[in-house]
Amino acid sequence: DYHIDWDAKAAEKGGYDYFMLKEIAEQPQAIADTLRGRLSEVGEITLDEVRLSEQDLRDVDKVFIVACGTAYHAGLVAKYAIEHWNRIPCEVELASEFRYRDPVLDRSTLVVAISQSGETMDTLMALRHAKQQKARVLAICNTNGSTIPRESDAVLYTHGGPEIAVASTKAFLTQLAACYLLGLHLAQVRGVMYADEVAAVVEQLSATPSMVDRVLEQMEPVRELARDLANARSVLFIGRHVGYPVALEGALKLKELAYMHAEGFAAGELKHGPIALIEDGTPVVCVVPSARGRGVLRDKVISNIQEVRARGARTVVIAEEGDDAVAPYADHLIPVPPTPTLLAPLVTTVPLQVLACEIAAARGHDVDQPRNLAKSVTVE
Amino acid sequence: DYHIDWDAKAAEKGGYDYFMLKEIAEQPQAIADTLRGRLSEVGEITLDEVRLSEQDLRDVDKVFIVACGTAYHAGLVAKYAIEHWNRIPCEVELASEFRYRDPVLDRSTLVVAISQSGETMDTLMALRHAKQQKARVLAICNTNGSTIPRESDAVLYTHGGPEIAVASTKAFLTQLAACYLLGLHLAQVRGVMYADEVAAVVEQLSATPSMVDRVLEQMEPVRELARDLANARSVLFIGRHVGYPVALEGALKLKELAYMHAEGFAAGELKHGPIALIEDGTPVVCVVPSARGRGVLRDKVISNIQEVRARGARTVVIAEEGDDAVAPYADHLIPVPPTPTLLAPLVTTVPLQVLACEIAAARGHDVDQPRNLAKSVTVE
Repeated sequence: DYHIDWDAKAAEKGGYDYFMLKEIAEQPQAIADTLRGRLSEVGEITLDEVRLSEQDLRDVDKVFIVACGTAYHAGLVAKYAIEHWNRIPCEVELASEFRYRDPVLDRSTLVVAISQSGETMDTLMALRHAKQQKARVLAICNTNGSTIPRESDAVLYTHGGPEIAVASTKAFLTQLAACYLLGLHLAQVRGVMYADEVAAVVEQLSATPSMVDRVLEQMEPVRELARDLANARSVLFIGRHVGYPVALEGALKLKELAYMHAEGFAAGELKHGPIALIEDGTPVVCVVPSARGRGVLRDKVISNIQEVRARGARTVVIAEEGDDAVAPYADHLIPVPPTPTLLAPLVTTVPLQVLACEIAAARGHDVDQPRNLAKSVTVE
Repeated sequence: DYHIDWDAKAAEKGGYDYFMLKEIAEQPQAIADTLRGRLSEVGEITLDEVRLSEQDLRDVDKVFIVACGTAYHAGLVAKYAIEHWNRIPCEVELASEFRYRDPVLDRSTLVVAISQSGETMDTLMALRHAKQQKARVLAICNTNGSTIPRESDAVLYTHGGPEIAVASTKAFLTQLAACYLLGLHLAQVRGVMYADEVAAVVEQLSATPSMVDRVLEQMEPVRELARDLANARSVLFIGRHVGYPVALEGALKLKELAYMHAEGFAAGELKHGPIALIEDGTPVVCVVPSARGRGVLRDKVISNIQEVRARGARTVVIAEEGDDAVAPYADHLIPVPPTPTLLAPLVTTVPLQVLACEIAAARGHDVDQPRNLAKSVTVE
């Protein structure tokens, strides 16, 4: 007796030119909805459907995350949070590769499948393979009663509401929020975090919607920059730590929407080859981590920015408000509110979404319906 | 009392226009030299310097491979072989990211550092971090007595001889050979492969130099194709399983040498976003796995080829000689000799090296000295 709660056709653009712009604007609410009611009165994180015992979760000694596209990038961020909070290894795999490479799985392996639609065929096939190998399976999904959650042992629904634009935005941020909740839930069940520690992170998470709001209020300079970059041949994105998946996601959005050659790199990896691509004026978008989290990491990103700038790159730098050390190396500075280290992707991703959307619009493309792409990929 | 055995300046181009061409041609010999003498009379795989007991290696329950650039791609291939032969998990990490993400390491973790020069600073720093966390450290390296092997608990030297061209070719293939040997050694010490099974794989490995020779003899059509592609705006590369790292390596070579926008993808991932990049005439290089290894994998790659072709791509298909099912979807077919599934990268990589080298030369670039790049990256 499952059904889809909302009708895509009923959704309206609400005054925006594109569904994607509307969905970008809905992100603060979508994150808040995904977080709502997750911390019970006794301080416990709750998932949705759980057909696993707490003992099953305590027995987990390895996590695999399987996903495709944007959801895969959410998984890459989740790895940092799950490993940091739980000290158990977490591997992230492209769903289309996972089942063909004979992953080492057993009853103490938790496989997390992330899919907005819950119908992504590659992810579903990976999940079924994992179940055959006796792994426990948990779904992070936006669509009630879809196939992936139905076939899972536990479910954490994102409450992003319908996403119409093919390129995912609010689904991504709500997947991130769900991944953090999962990491906390595991840590709590496994007894490695106190209830007050969990509550403190939930409170930090609850503050992120208003931060995303603040970012969205300051997007006019980003839109101007986007129109200016619309004729660039290509754009590179660099980041370290949780900023690396953000760089990958920023590049993917630009590929999907603007059909521009865009690639994300771990910032330290550029000098091992890809820096050869940089010529005079090549735009490089740089995601700078907070100096408060791990100063050495921020300093390394700054020296990577200097390296690309010395080779002629035009640097677009996303950094914490007030991080004055960064400004001298930024041709364009996009300030974002300070966030805890692990949660930064919830805010640093937003300017990259706006940038891609606006560049695509300036190039005259249909932002909501990019060529060659389907919203939900139900073939392998 | 360590010293470097050979002097880079003494190397000559030996009649080739570029060191890179000479080094591509030397690959059969380089692989053979790396394999030589590894199988002892009692059927045991031997490494070089081993300051670890067999018990230490038997205790290994997790392998991390850390590397940068091309060596990282060798690590991605090694993961398949090590997991397949040993059934222990193997994670591959960019060295520049590894130490900042608090990896879960202990005495039963083996960290494998791959570096041609043995002086790659990112890899050295990752190795030192691993040692601080009490992990065992093994180096795969081409330079006797360099820092990374000196600081490791065990060493497996590649015997590729001096590599002068900045873009790595024979170092990559010899790193692959060394990775296979390491996977076999671990399996033997841990008691999960019989001596005759190990010997059978070593024999298959020993046959690869002559296969590379055969590939090299058939490169004239690839060179013609390269001149034809020299003005393309970008080239995409796709593969699955061990063909995925080959696709990444092919794309990296083209970035490094031709400064073209080239990106490698897991073939199944294209439809989740990057397929939007494909327009009429976009060259897509497709690495097809053997149908003899896992037929379903080959079939999936063929349907991926059909997908990109339906959107206008010009397909360059690397497939086993005699694989007639592939030919109808190939605008350009590059046949390679049949190989065992896991060993395929030793031959499928070679046409991609030739392609990149020839495209770069046709575009008028200095193949041996690409802009912005150093041979050995001794800064972080």
